[in-house]
Amino acid sequence: MEPKTRFAVVGAGAVGGYYGAMLARAGNEMHFLSRRDADAMNRDGIEVISPNGDFTVTSVVAHSDWQSIPECDVVIVAVKSTANDDVFARIADIVKPDGVVLLIQNGIGAEIALAAALPESVEVVGGLAFIGSQKTGPTQISHFDYGALTLGVFATDYAPAPTGNRLNDLVEAFTAAGVVISISDSLLAARWQKLVWNIPFNTLSVILDATTAELISNDATYRLAEQMMAEVMAAAAADGCVLPSDLPAGMLTATKAMTPYSTSMKVDFNAGRPLEFEAIAGGALSRARSTNTPMPVLETIYQQLAFVDSRLHG
Amino acid sequence: MEPKTRFAVVGAGAVGGYYGAMLARAGNEMHFLSRRDADAMNRDGIEVISPNGDFTVTSVVAHSDWQSIPECDVVIVAVKSTANDDVFARIADIVKPDGVVLLIQNGIGAEIALAAALPESVEVVGGLAFIGSQKTGPTQISHFDYGALTLGVFATDYAPAPTGNRLNDLVEAFTAAGVVISISDSLLAARWQKLVWNIPFNTLSVILDATTAELISNDATYRLAEQMMAEVMAAAAADGCVLPSDLPAGMLTATKAMTPYSTSMKVDFNAGRPLEFEAIAGGALSRARSTNTPMPVLETIYQQLAFVDSRLHG
Repeated sequence: MEPKTRFAVVGAGAVGGYYGAMLARAGNEMHFLSRRDADAMNRDGIEVISPNGDFTVTSVVAHSDWQSIPECDVVIVAVKSTANDDVFARIADIVKPDGVVLLIQNGIGAEIALAAALPESVEVVGGLAFIGSQKTGPTQISHFDYGALTLGVFATDYAPAPTGNRLNDLVEAFTAAGVVISISDSLLAARWQKLVWNIPFNTLSVILDATTAELISNDATYRLAEQMMAEVMAAAAADGCVLPSDLPAGMLTATKAMTPYSTSMKVDFNAGRPLEFEAIAGGALSRARSTNTPMPVLETIYQQLAFVDSRLHG
Repeated sequence: MEPKTRFAVVGAGAVGGYYGAMLARAGNEMHFLSRRDADAMNRDGIEVISPNGDFTVTSVVAHSDWQSIPECDVVIVAVKSTANDDVFARIADIVKPDGVVLLIQNGIGAEIALAAALPESVEVVGGLAFIGSQKTGPTQISHFDYGALTLGVFATDYAPAPTGNRLNDLVEAFTAAGVVISISDSLLAARWQKLVWNIPFNTLSVILDATTAELISNDATYRLAEQMMAEVMAAAAADGCVLPSDLPAGMLTATKAMTPYSTSMKVDFNAGRPLEFEAIAGGALSRARSTNTPMPVLETIYQQLAFVDSRLHG
């Protein structure tokens, strides 16, 4: 990717702030949209606290409003999925006609709405972040664990899409910035695969107010997680994505070995923020319904989450 | 019933304390088992605070141990179902060979274990209490609402049982004491019918930490309650109890009109007591499995309750 690549990051939180700061440190031109923290970021830059070494980038330009953001080669969208409607309506204004929009988000289905809001000439790339990080101040991101990103090109209806020059340039930029990238030739399969873990643990941690360690060490919730994983595997297969059959067992074993962990939905819940239950549970259910795949456990838990979420707004 | 009828009440809590005090006021010989509060009850009697008029009965005999309880004509068991194993093992010692054991409890299935622990000559009667009451002190029961009792004779495997003399005597004693009694010729149907309400509202109120008013006024939990009621109706029908088809709609409407209410399971949860989830959810599931009736929503919620319950002990 040319050194003059210009990036925008919409959503300068735990995820967007981290990857944006990594790209800034590598010398890319970075624009951040942050209604609340633009002034502080223009004054202090962004500080990343990380086991890989702390650093601060001061070269970033922060904007409190869409209007002042110049047209960018790459727009990274890393807002919570609950903000998608508002954000997607504005992206076309800040991306070049031959640019790329990278959506780093949990859940499944959002790229369909994103692509519909953009000219066909813009490439949509889906990203899945495997990272433990948190925004710990207006200009501070604390990075705890991992940091890899899986990228896949989005084509109409999640059809398998060829890797083109624009994705390669993006991979090069991230790699040069020290971010480990995997490329998936099926974005849909990558999204389903992440849901195999996210669906049980995000949802149950909120409904039962529990850490991953509590859920995995109790027989009843271990079984429930297993059942939910089986439901996701079946829905994925019916959706054309046959995932490795030993994936659930491997994830359960890995979860047993994890330090007790608050899932992203639990972190949102604890902070009183809207839950990403539509993107995660609703997105999976909606694709499963279109293939007539029953997900009875998730159907129940989806409605419980709708209740919990509505109480957060109430 | 002869004036010299002798009653024992095992479980002198909100339910057993209330009905026992009513029977005592009517002149019956009453023995209460209460490990913790026997001394206080022997000193102060039992006080009932009620919209129907407060009263105190001082004639009761309280026992801190099974050994001192004489053989009784009627033993009322009103412990939480979580104590059944321990209690059922002792009942045969305190009931006359031609006596009656009345089990006032939520859930389904417990009479099978109770009958198995008693000589065949003892009659087992199931009771369902429709009452709002609470134990508000060592010797004080606060009665808020209702108070009716539905009674049904238990026959092997919940077969419909004829109403005999012993049930009639019991009804007479309760009626003379001012308790409104309905007799059900199918104890099994009466238990299923109560579960139509108890299953959704007891379980969801605990899992979602909610009052009945919150659950009924939210679209998602209203739907979930409807689905759970439909599951119970189907399981009851497969179990030989076709309940009136307008029962769920009527219960939902009645619940909308209720003042916000903490279910009995929620009261137990708030007090850190074991949950009656095995008797209520587990009992229904076990009968549904024996007729191959799917209860997918309840299966999920049962496992969530098992988690919540295990954390209460942890």
